[in-house]
Amino acid sequence: MSAPPSPTESQVLRANAAFYTAFTRGDHDAMDALWAARATVTCLHPGASLLRGRETVLAAWRAIMTGPLPFEMRCHGAEVQLYGDVAVVTCYEGNGEQPAHLAATNVFVLEDGTWRMAHHQAGPLSRPFQPRPSSALN
Amino acid sequence: MSAPPSPTESQVLRANAAFYTAFTRGDHDAMDALWAARATVTCLHPGASLLRGRETVLAAWRAIMTGPLPFEMRCHGAEVQLYGDVAVVTCYEGNGEQPAHLAATNVFVLEDGTWRMAHHQAGPLSRPFQPRPSSALN
Repeated sequence: MSAPPSPTESQVLRANAAFYTAFTRGDHDAMDALWAARATVTCLHPGASLLRGRETVLAAWRAIMTGPLPFEMRCHGAEVQLYGDVAVVTCYEGNGEQPAHLAATNVFVLEDGTWRMAHHQAGPLSRPFQPRPSSALN
Repeated sequence: MSAPPSPTESQVLRANAAFYTAFTRGDHDAMDALWAARATVTCLHPGASLLRGRETVLAAWRAIMTGPLPFEMRCHGAEVQLYGDVAVVTCYEGNGEQPAHLAATNVFVLEDGTWRMAHHQAGPLSRPFQPRPSSALN
């Protein structure tokens, strides 16, 4: 088992959870607020080429979240590595109660005391991730 | 077109290029040297679940590089975002002259004045990436 998260790690994990909550709710304002305001942001959606810049990245999220398919994006097994004012979260993403089918890297930067997302990559898992009970609610 | 890389960005891009050179040559010592020594390292290979810790990550690279298939891993279109002493490189990975078939995130941290890899994720592209001539040699 990993050690319990430190206060700073917990802050990052809350920011990471807020990302999946915003996605699931289709809440574009929340999604907008959680991406970095000054740092350059980038995004690699599954299968897709790089999106760079706040306007481009947020427009893509808006398009995804306003699409025809409701999609409850759950995050499982989130782990955070802290590198000073930058944090890298790895986790698995799944639709609702389905086993997670994507692995993700979420990079956060500290801006004005708040951890904000600077980069996201998600890609498919060969085998769905079955969370252990202890990591299911990260 | 993007601005030319700064001296620091160029250092990061050289570290990123060294990763692909080590892979292509099957040079485990070089691969070992370019991963962070103190920062916790993590790795998400295509389709696979998370590897955490230097020993685990390097053992997986050794297994991949000593496998039966020679694999010339080329990096295309590398872009770097600097967040202080942490850098995030995004690029596309392809086998030799084939169009790139993976998108990658490579996170580097500055350790003792050297940019070292702390995290790698690669995942498949839906459509192969065709590099423009100006970005083919990144």
